[in-house]
Amino acid sequence: MIQLPPIDGQSDIPVYRQLYAALKSSILAGDLQHGDRLPPTRDLAQQLNLNRATVSAAYALLEEDGLVNGQVGRGSFVQNKATEDGEISFATSRPSTDLFPVNEFQATAQEVLSRDLLKILQLGSPHGYAPLRNFLIEEAIAEGVFHPDRDDLLITSGCQQALDLIQKALIPAGAAVLTSEPIYPGLRNAFSQSVTVDPSAPRIEARIVTPSFHNPTGETMTLAERSQLAASPELLIEVDIYSRLRYTGDALPTIRSLSTSNQTLLLRSFSKIAFPGLRVGWVIGAKPLIQKLALAKQWTDLHSDQLSQAIMLEFARSGRLQQHLGNVLEAGRIRLQTTIKTLEQVLPQGSTFTRPEGGMNLWVTLPRGCDTASMLEKARRVDVNYLPGRYFSLSAPMNESFRLSFAGLSPQQITEGLRRLAPLFEEEARIASRYQEPLPAMAMV
Amino acid sequence: MIQLPPIDGQSDIPVYRQLYAALKSSILAGDLQHGDRLPPTRDLAQQLNLNRATVSAAYALLEEDGLVNGQVGRGSFVQNKATEDGEISFATSRPSTDLFPVNEFQATAQEVLSRDLLKILQLGSPHGYAPLRNFLIEEAIAEGVFHPDRDDLLITSGCQQALDLIQKALIPAGAAVLTSEPIYPGLRNAFSQSVTVDPSAPRIEARIVTPSFHNPTGETMTLAERSQLAASPELLIEVDIYSRLRYTGDALPTIRSLSTSNQTLLLRSFSKIAFPGLRVGWVIGAKPLIQKLALAKQWTDLHSDQLSQAIMLEFARSGRLQQHLGNVLEAGRIRLQTTIKTLEQVLPQGSTFTRPEGGMNLWVTLPRGCDTASMLEKARRVDVNYLPGRYFSLSAPMNESFRLSFAGLSPQQITEGLRRLAPLFEEEARIASRYQEPLPAMAMV
Repeated sequence: MIQLPPIDGQSDIPVYRQLYAALKSSILAGDLQHGDRLPPTRDLAQQLNLNRATVSAAYALLEEDGLVNGQVGRGSFVQNKATEDGEISFATSRPSTDLFPVNEFQATAQEVLSRDLLKILQLGSPHGYAPLRNFLIEEAIAEGVFHPDRDDLLITSGCQQALDLIQKALIPAGAAVLTSEPIYPGLRNAFSQSVTVDPSAPRIEARIVTPSFHNPTGETMTLAERSQLAASPELLIEVDIYSRLRYTGDALPTIRSLSTSNQTLLLRSFSKIAFPGLRVGWVIGAKPLIQKLALAKQWTDLHSDQLSQAIMLEFARSGRLQQHLGNVLEAGRIRLQTTIKTLEQVLPQGSTFTRPEGGMNLWVTLPRGCDTASMLEKARRVDVNYLPGRYFSLSAPMNESFRLSFAGLSPQQITEGLRRLAPLFEEEARIASRYQEPLPAMAMV
Repeated sequence: MIQLPPIDGQSDIPVYRQLYAALKSSILAGDLQHGDRLPPTRDLAQQLNLNRATVSAAYALLEEDGLVNGQVGRGSFVQNKATEDGEISFATSRPSTDLFPVNEFQATAQEVLSRDLLKILQLGSPHGYAPLRNFLIEEAIAEGVFHPDRDDLLITSGCQQALDLIQKALIPAGAAVLTSEPIYPGLRNAFSQSVTVDPSAPRIEARIVTPSFHNPTGETMTLAERSQLAASPELLIEVDIYSRLRYTGDALPTIRSLSTSNQTLLLRSFSKIAFPGLRVGWVIGAKPLIQKLALAKQWTDLHSDQLSQAIMLEFARSGRLQQHLGNVLEAGRIRLQTTIKTLEQVLPQGSTFTRPEGGMNLWVTLPRGCDTASMLEKARRVDVNYLPGRYFSLSAPMNESFRLSFAGLSPQQITEGLRRLAPLFEEEARIASRYQEPLPAMAMV
């Protein structure tokens, strides 16, 4: 028997719409899951003391929304792709839910709630929750990327907000921000008008790089490349949200630690190494730059949520983050290995892919002429999802490529998902090769 | 004995700076509070196995920061205005910490953590945490400010972020946004270039109003004024974050509920009625408008923090918010009454002030010629703080006025704070009247 809020016969809202809204909430909240059968209209009508036609009308609205699938003679079934186990999605660069340390998180939260609650609930500072801010500063000093005399640190609502604030506070209208292609869409959109991949563009104000395990390519800059960037005169925005997810090989220094000009902003976040649902990131940089960002932060959303800041502080300070990260690294290593091994087996000849030593993504390029966007429709029919190359495009279409996000999937899901894609890869390569046959050359006159 | 993180003798950072940083963290985190005595240098040196000069050097840096006050023969004492009980601040429009329901909040959080944790920790939707969003939609439908066929709802990181997103997504460059003066600085800054108080300004794209218990004035629009605004053709931004804080008198309908054009965006938040440290607000409006705001939201910070959304949902759904609000209203009524009664006693002749029936602020205007900004320096010497009129200025200076935020203070604090201000009011009025004496008129030739 489903639990629903009481239907209000005195309300101005028709009863069938109330019922529809209640069922919709249950589906979207995950109380009713994909494949669940709704009770027969007669039964629910009886349970709620309603007219059967009323229940049918509510079900019809759910069907219109695509949230329910009515099958003649069998009943109505919940359709919610989001809670469906069947789909294997390589589309999202996020950590794996099954690794989240539920007990450790609960214990952390309980400690925080019993100790610092009043301070957390009251209005805070645009700079961030002071104890977390101080902890991150201490960590950064120890790492050699923060000098107390000249640097400051601002807490942001994830790395995405740091990009937004930088655009607002530090990039004048008409100035250009240089980056590379393929580009993470969150970056393209944060800097919309100003972003360019042309190093000879006029008025380049800043450069943005992700030196370790770049999204979407998974690529990592060499020490030589980092040293060269450390010497560049313009503002450098160093997105460093993946570097702690190194599964093999040796760590490389941040560009900020190599730079002497203090023109580098270092952007970090707990999202990729811990929990993306809690929005806690931070920026480290020269005091005058951080001061401008903090002012923009105040008028953007006053300050970041303090409960998550306090919990992430305790999670890190207690050593639980380090322990969790150990599990994530072990799982990530296996997942990355599985992905590379399976790709070697299923990709058609002429394909290439990046071989990162960490992070969440790699970049696959099928043979020339393939179209990963049109292939996606077929992939969805076998319940596989990914983001095609053109999603990461700024100037070049990159039709042959796609991003493969492996970190959120189990090795079994990775193998199964790529096996489902294998025949589509083959088919796509076959179609493409047909159009690649050289046409008889025209006489040059 | 103070607890400090271990000092690392192998670090590149000098030991005295490590100790300084550790003590600073403790003070800013509130572990060491205002008035606490630091251990004598000799004792701390012994405890940490350090040279006594090292400890003295760390203390000297803290004194340079103004965080410690060394008194010859008595020792070094923590100075932290933020944790000091002595200051009475009328400067912040925020709820009272002493009313926060610690136990009820902890119970709510525990329920949420034991039930929905995995969903909360994983990446979410720009539209907001689905169960909260659905709850708020149901509530808005019941209230008559949401029509499922044509409206939508977006969760924001407080009301401040809704303003930022509206500016970004709905106000074209060069267009004007009409509002009134005095103006809340968060509003002036969110719309910086475009905000105007001149109704005849060209290209007015939108109007912003706070019809109930306006910040900073505390004023409330009549039903007639609301009806008139409901009929205005341009986009109307209705800031509705204080209306549930009505202590006396009858509730008035929102402009949105009176409007037929669906050109009104309704901005709400849990910050003022519950906890400003958790950043949970929302916007209700026509689907195409909310769609644009949701897109801007995604590239601003992906989505709002989910833990606070889930907890606020449970806090509201369980009836605890309603119960808490009951206490807040009872306390607010007494605080407002005390404020008005005391103002009547302490203000010099010729002063005026608004008499709201709710909210957190009222607006005091001293006799002509007074300067509340210069008076503030004297107020601080008697440990009282407020925001002078010019802080809320757009075109007029409003030197005679100041905002008095009463909701966060106990009746005792309100009375004591205003009594400390009384002689300053008198002095200011006396000085002002001296300059108001009419000068002998010049002969007109």
